[in-house]
Amino acid sequence: MTDDDALDNYNNDWLNQYKGTSKLALRPGNTKDVATILKYCNEKKLAVTPQGGNTGLVGGSVPLFDEVIVSLSRMNKVLDFDEVSGIVVCEAGCVLQDLDNWLADRGHMVPLDLGAKGSCHIGGNVATNAGGLRYLRYGSLHGSVLGMETVLPSGEVLDSMSRLRKDNTGYDVKQLFIGSEGTLGAITKLAISVPRRPLSVNTMFLALKDFDAVCQTYSEARRQLAEVLSAVEFADRPSLDILFSEFPDIHREPFQDKYPFHMLIEVSGSDMNHDREKMDTFLEHCMMEGLIQDGVVAQDTQQSLALWALREDITMALAQAGHVYKYDFSLPLDHFYTIVEEMRERLSKVSIETHTVGYGHVGDSNVHLNICTPGKRGVTPEVMDVIEPFVYDFVRDHAGSISAEHGLGQMKPDKIFHTKSHTSVDIMKQIKTVFDPNGIMNPYKHVSYHTELAKEVS
Amino acid sequence: MTDDDALDNYNNDWLNQYKGTSKLALRPGNTKDVATILKYCNEKKLAVTPQGGNTGLVGGSVPLFDEVIVSLSRMNKVLDFDEVSGIVVCEAGCVLQDLDNWLADRGHMVPLDLGAKGSCHIGGNVATNAGGLRYLRYGSLHGSVLGMETVLPSGEVLDSMSRLRKDNTGYDVKQLFIGSEGTLGAITKLAISVPRRPLSVNTMFLALKDFDAVCQTYSEARRQLAEVLSAVEFADRPSLDILFSEFPDIHREPFQDKYPFHMLIEVSGSDMNHDREKMDTFLEHCMMEGLIQDGVVAQDTQQSLALWALREDITMALAQAGHVYKYDFSLPLDHFYTIVEEMRERLSKVSIETHTVGYGHVGDSNVHLNICTPGKRGVTPEVMDVIEPFVYDFVRDHAGSISAEHGLGQMKPDKIFHTKSHTSVDIMKQIKTVFDPNGIMNPYKHVSYHTELAKEVS
Repeated sequence: MTDDDALDNYNNDWLNQYKGTSKLALRPGNTKDVATILKYCNEKKLAVTPQGGNTGLVGGSVPLFDEVIVSLSRMNKVLDFDEVSGIVVCEAGCVLQDLDNWLADRGHMVPLDLGAKGSCHIGGNVATNAGGLRYLRYGSLHGSVLGMETVLPSGEVLDSMSRLRKDNTGYDVKQLFIGSEGTLGAITKLAISVPRRPLSVNTMFLALKDFDAVCQTYSEARRQLAEVLSAVEFADRPSLDILFSEFPDIHREPFQDKYPFHMLIEVSGSDMNHDREKMDTFLEHCMMEGLIQDGVVAQDTQQSLALWALREDITMALAQAGHVYKYDFSLPLDHFYTIVEEMRERLSKVSIETHTVGYGHVGDSNVHLNICTPGKRGVTPEVMDVIEPFVYDFVRDHAGSISAEHGLGQMKPDKIFHTKSHTSVDIMKQIKTVFDPNGIMNPYKHVSYHTELAKEVS
Repeated sequence: MTDDDALDNYNNDWLNQYKGTSKLALRPGNTKDVATILKYCNEKKLAVTPQGGNTGLVGGSVPLFDEVIVSLSRMNKVLDFDEVSGIVVCEAGCVLQDLDNWLADRGHMVPLDLGAKGSCHIGGNVATNAGGLRYLRYGSLHGSVLGMETVLPSGEVLDSMSRLRKDNTGYDVKQLFIGSEGTLGAITKLAISVPRRPLSVNTMFLALKDFDAVCQTYSEARRQLAEVLSAVEFADRPSLDILFSEFPDIHREPFQDKYPFHMLIEVSGSDMNHDREKMDTFLEHCMMEGLIQDGVVAQDTQQSLALWALREDITMALAQAGHVYKYDFSLPLDHFYTIVEEMRERLSKVSIETHTVGYGHVGDSNVHLNICTPGKRGVTPEVMDVIEPFVYDFVRDHAGSISAEHGLGQMKPDKIFHTKSHTSVDIMKQIKTVFDPNGIMNPYKHVSYHTELAKEVS
């Protein structure tokens, strides 16, 4: 594909924050064709950007210059399913929601769910080690990805396609590809351990007076809801204010009064009565103890979706409101919200109007700190200088991660030293060279950014 | 430590199957001392064997020759615990049971349990990627190990001590150490995600007529018991026959009749009534459908331990009965038990008395195939020639793993090509060289076996 219009989708990310100038996007239909492409590019030292659904938030799947785009979108078949053990084998280009629907018909689910599920690919999810909404329950892809087929730049196929839960024979090389953002090779097939789909799902939306109450409520949820707890999400007042003002026809205040903090807690299990009973006991306890100020419980799937949308639509509301400075941090709960407060305080002194909001996956200590400048204004140095490097220093000083689930991409590869040592990055660079000695895979991003080889290419 | 008697414990494994001739075992008390030792050995090109509780089954922690043993046993402190998020930080030498007891006092548990828990170290568990009894519920250490501190042969400390559930900044290098069997460096500290300890635990022991019923019962357990299912274990008739004949005072037939197959199913959750109700519905269904022939349910902790002992004591009964040829395979359930049947059939033709038994973690497709020759006879070529290479070929031909959870150690590094490609092993060798260019770490074993460097050392 070389037509400029047709290439636009491949050269841009979905939020139009990153833009490349690639002249060539290839859509191979099988592993052999991926191998032929990579081998050719490797011999000619042509840079390559593997691409999934292109829904990342750090520009990892978007070329910077004239990289050859290798889209996995045609490789979208489910290949096998072991219903007794719950193991699915599929190609990397399966759209997450399609794969989940396919499994739903068979009583199972992908152990991963995120806002972009209608477009993102399972291969891209693995390449970026996506976290998402139910990480708390189903854990990391490092645990649930059982097997992987990848094509190396040499054109060799690295077949780690185990369909087994356990396999201790040598180093677990495939783990390196989970979160490698296309810098080591192209993921072509996956075997994933998939859980039974819960028969009962209950969602509640809670109002809280301070962040301490959020932490206590989370702790109580882990204790009382234990094995049926499937999500613990969080949004502050300013997040919801923007949501209600941007989407007044769709969303409105769920409570009579306004509260500074909100949580969405989801419970899912195999028995509706048991789950409801646990939830009622939990809610009663939290009310009695004064942990929560108010709460609504979804009575059906429709209401549950509406409550989830209060959390999930914040991202879109912010994007509609203006330019968004997006940050995705892991921070211990002690400092999970102080970064939002300190940022807001700092920005109160600049001349431009800013809205500093915090939301995210409190159950995973993963905060999305977003700063929105209303209107059509893009990045302004006055705002940026107040945000960076302050936020990265804050995260380093409080033993956090500068990228919890979004990755480094082209947005922040140069920030890696804030939370990783030189020893660690040096090992990463050597590993990169083992897989990709010519540095053709997704250069200028992630660990590729730190290899000299990558800089010589293209 | 250089006294020969004192060294015996370090030079021998617990089953006395492997024996080294090391003259020096060191017991450093902190990371800095580990670094000093490794740096010195690396400079002098002295081979090193890191050692945990020395309870492995493939000789990975036992030296072959005069390797310097670095025991982590003095580094056994719990360093930190985040009760809200459920994250524990500890030194690698913590005994698994001690760590679990410590967490039990705080309402949590290690997401790992195995027979050797009273001696094995958490660092050794991670270095060997131990699976154990509740893998089905709590998943792989690749998912639950959040942070790791390791010392490289150069003496550099690789600090990946994230206490965060999510951290997508660069390659997840620590994953390579999970299952590396001490061939890359020494694990000194860990941060682990730990679940709430269930308030209710129920155990049942079932009798079944054939292996097909075992698979169907497992599938039904995943469907009905879902989120409360915590173990699905398996033992065949000959396993229990040996158990009852070796330990007649402790164990006896739990059913009036004898049955060819047995399962232990454990259910654990946060509400005793709910769990019991799910279990009763499940059992009733299985009886009605003719899936199970008989079943006993533990009425208290004592009875539960007695049922678990029926499964856990099989290993000791076999060891007491004679020489045991031990194999630990992952196999798709279609072939999980056929390997036991075929092996038994083949061995029926040799002149020596053999007992071929199969037991293991059916929920993880992990079968322990054990062949016992009664009496004081050791390895006999007549028996061995019938077993190997047949078993490894069988596993390869049925897309299994030659080592599900025990690892390669010194027992089977040469068998790796049965289930891993040359491309894959070649990448492993290069990774080994990145971390350990002089090849001093645990040579002659695991991937070290395949590096020329390792063979020159010592």
